[in-house]
Amino acid sequence: MPGRKKRGQQTVVFDTPPTITAWASVVGPKEGAGPWGRDFDAVMDDYIFGEKTWEIAEYKMLRNTIERALDKRNFRPDDAELLLAGDLLNQIVASNFAARDLAIPFLGLYGACSTMAESLTVGAMLMDGGYFERIVAAACSHHYTAERQYRFPTEQGVQKAQTAQWTATAAGAVLLEARGSGPYIKAATVGKVIDMGQTDASDMGSAMAGAAVHTIKTHLDDMALSGDYYDLIVTGDLGKVGSAIARQLFVREGIVSPNYSDCGVLLYDREQAVGSGGSGCGCSACMLCGPLLKKMRGGELRKLLLICTGALMSPITAFQGESIPGIAHAVAIELW
Amino acid sequence: MPGRKKRGQQTVVFDTPPTITAWASVVGPKEGAGPWGRDFDAVMDDYIFGEKTWEIAEYKMLRNTIERALDKRNFRPDDAELLLAGDLLNQIVASNFAARDLAIPFLGLYGACSTMAESLTVGAMLMDGGYFERIVAAACSHHYTAERQYRFPTEQGVQKAQTAQWTATAAGAVLLEARGSGPYIKAATVGKVIDMGQTDASDMGSAMAGAAVHTIKTHLDDMALSGDYYDLIVTGDLGKVGSAIARQLFVREGIVSPNYSDCGVLLYDREQAVGSGGSGCGCSACMLCGPLLKKMRGGELRKLLLICTGALMSPITAFQGESIPGIAHAVAIELW
Repeated sequence: MPGRKKRGQQTVVFDTPPTITAWASVVGPKEGAGPWGRDFDAVMDDYIFGEKTWEIAEYKMLRNTIERALDKRNFRPDDAELLLAGDLLNQIVASNFAARDLAIPFLGLYGACSTMAESLTVGAMLMDGGYFERIVAAACSHHYTAERQYRFPTEQGVQKAQTAQWTATAAGAVLLEARGSGPYIKAATVGKVIDMGQTDASDMGSAMAGAAVHTIKTHLDDMALSGDYYDLIVTGDLGKVGSAIARQLFVREGIVSPNYSDCGVLLYDREQAVGSGGSGCGCSACMLCGPLLKKMRGGELRKLLLICTGALMSPITAFQGESIPGIAHAVAIELW
Repeated sequence: MPGRKKRGQQTVVFDTPPTITAWASVVGPKEGAGPWGRDFDAVMDDYIFGEKTWEIAEYKMLRNTIERALDKRNFRPDDAELLLAGDLLNQIVASNFAARDLAIPFLGLYGACSTMAESLTVGAMLMDGGYFERIVAAACSHHYTAERQYRFPTEQGVQKAQTAQWTATAAGAVLLEARGSGPYIKAATVGKVIDMGQTDASDMGSAMAGAAVHTIKTHLDDMALSGDYYDLIVTGDLGKVGSAIARQLFVREGIVSPNYSDCGVLLYDREQAVGSGGSGCGCSACMLCGPLLKKMRGGELRKLLLICTGALMSPITAFQGESIPGIAHAVAIELW
């Protein structure tokens, strides 16, 4: 017997859809120089943010983003009842340190680049379930902390594969409240881990495409919707390579005419030399908490399906020759 | 305004307390040779579990533990609607790989050694909230994967500080269902990140003691209970050093006569040379999913407060001289 708010295989539908009452995004210089620079709340002048390490800069970017979101509703951190956050750093230290400074009760999440959708999914369930009235859902990534953790010492200047993506320096935070005028979180689909057998850590878009399409297909089936129901179906960070594969899989899976794009493709201009596109938890987090929610507030976009995608390997499993499992969680955000 | 199921500052109380209908634990040889060897479902013959790497052994130990818990109710993995799990490995790869093999919709958590309480807390909320009827909450750790990731190459045989703890090789999994005869999850307290300014990564018990006592104090205050209400208040892995500090803090905080112990102290015999005691997500997970729930089923233990404690640093933040923030989540498990 499934839960009473469950629809189909993997989707939950909210009785009292939580409202996104405020949001904020802070991004790095490269992200600010892209096509959406004016849609973010702040663009950092550099990657160090006045701190002594990139790791400290990353956590302060996240903390600042959360403070900005709360401030838009005149809330202080201790007005928030729960913080749900994650990032790409080992032991999610950016989120841990931000949670320490903010002193908001904290549940740490790890979903790699799927974290923004994971935090929204869990947050919406914990609000609609009646546990908390003000929840912050957030995620971030930083190009230089990710480079040295996952790839090579940045000083080495290693050339990247064409299929590789550029980890965004960006943070996004959403404030969920039980009452408000929308946008609302209507439903969410919790993903399964899908492994396409891909072992190339320089091509994570391909590794995640299967999980993304599996979750989109499951969501549409569970909700009995056709592919063109949403004004926009947007994946988190498949990039050019991964989203091209996703489009092929849409055809194979019979997903008809989706209005589809990918945050990793959208975030940067063509001239910005980011390989296959943007990636990192911050990529979908800042696109949601910048241009996408702004368009929803303006009424330009009314039905959005956000599918954040995560590659669930570690450098150790990659070195050991294991394949790269992917996951994708979907959040349906609507205005009515 | 707080959520309607919230009590006091940080505690939620369940309308329909989820039942722990089954559980399982699998441990390593050292844990099996300790005082509770017969209370675990299985003791591994060695640390490699027939696999080529310790990392693969760890994920298969977790997968096996989850399968055992489900099997006790004659469920297959696809009967479970949700898996909530985490571990200590970078990018929680043990949980990711187990979730891939099991193909259960998955939300990855990172709370360091607090993960078992985090997974139970989130799981209980998502069940009582009406989203899922069968949820698996799990956590694991492996001594040798943790040693090489957090400390030194194991081949180097580095001597440990007296205050250091021994990461347990162990996994625990609980099956939560909406109906059953108990033990029930009555309430849960989500912790705040507390930083005592400690910078010694060889003494994590001291770093986490403040968070543990903060959460215990908050829980008792929120629920209007005295310190002696519970038959047992058990922390996850403060070890000898951390739990001695916790006892001092109980006095300072006015927590009267708690029946207190620590899984890190309980897990091993005095002669087992584990420094200050056990640690790791698996330490509290196997103690819960072995001796403690067994005692509850037998009626010997009726009111248990489990507080799993996590040290939220990474090797990078420790090298950079940052202090070690701690977190602790509390779960009240009762029989009635």
